[in-house]
Amino acid sequence: MAELYFDDFKVGDTIASSGMTVTESQIIDFAMRYDFQPFHTDVEAAKESIFGGLVASGIHTIAVTFRLLLMTGLLKHNLGSPGFDELRWLKPVHPGDTLSAVAEVLECKPSKKHKDRGTIRFRYSTYNQNDEKVFTVIGSQILRRLQIN
Amino acid sequence: MAELYFDDFKVGDTIASSGMTVTESQIIDFAMRYDFQPFHTDVEAAKESIFGGLVASGIHTIAVTFRLLLMTGLLKHNLGSPGFDELRWLKPVHPGDTLSAVAEVLECKPSKKHKDRGTIRFRYSTYNQNDEKVFTVIGSQILRRLQIN
Repeated sequence: MAELYFDDFKVGDTIASSGMTVTESQIIDFAMRYDFQPFHTDVEAAKESIFGGLVASGIHTIAVTFRLLLMTGLLKHNLGSPGFDELRWLKPVHPGDTLSAVAEVLECKPSKKHKDRGTIRFRYSTYNQNDEKVFTVIGSQILRRLQIN
Repeated sequence: MAELYFDDFKVGDTIASSGMTVTESQIIDFAMRYDFQPFHTDVEAAKESIFGGLVASGIHTIAVTFRLLLMTGLLKHNLGSPGFDELRWLKPVHPGDTLSAVAEVLECKPSKKHKDRGTIRFRYSTYNQNDEKVFTVIGSQILRRLQIN
């Protein structure tokens, strides 16, 4: 697991995560807590939905994506995030799908106010086992800089 | 619980949720699964962070917001969401904070292709017990229309 500071990134860098298989029970458990729509919780009702079967909550997909990215060490020196932009669910995530995520560096902006940090804008993209992009978002992260004493 | 179709909304409408108290264990449980950064999982390490104490994962805040909004019946006829925009975490959410959410209708756009549905753009805002806005996002939802046979 790498431990990347703000200074370790440059525009165009990409960091790829390992994979995680999203199971039917994970989908239903997550949805029962946070997103109890029938196409996320009820296999039978989901057949009648526009998805034609159970699909993961989009918020679950965000959460899994973030978990996969954290596991790369990408955000080891993250101090927080002001927000996300252009969040898109491009394809449904089905039970048994294996997701992996890629972070691409779009912009590196040192803070003028705080010399110990800078903001990096990443494009996070999540793919299934067929290399179809299922999710994408632009995430801003405030990362710690290497301290030069 | 209201059951609102696309046709029931007009620009400017607001729908307010009930409240939910976010506990320390919820914060840590969620973060251990999806967002295991020390300021979300470790009370002691969090004291040394820029937050000065444990705070909820931003993704947890998204999830709780969505749960609160679903409980209003707002999305009873939701067919899915293409995405979210301008997602911002404005203030930290601390253990013991009670969150509630408001949806405001920004735009109602009937589908030209599918007569049975339309897209509504909502601004979702989440407040704590001190009426401080902690989170905001623009969410697009595809809602079913009232069927006129």
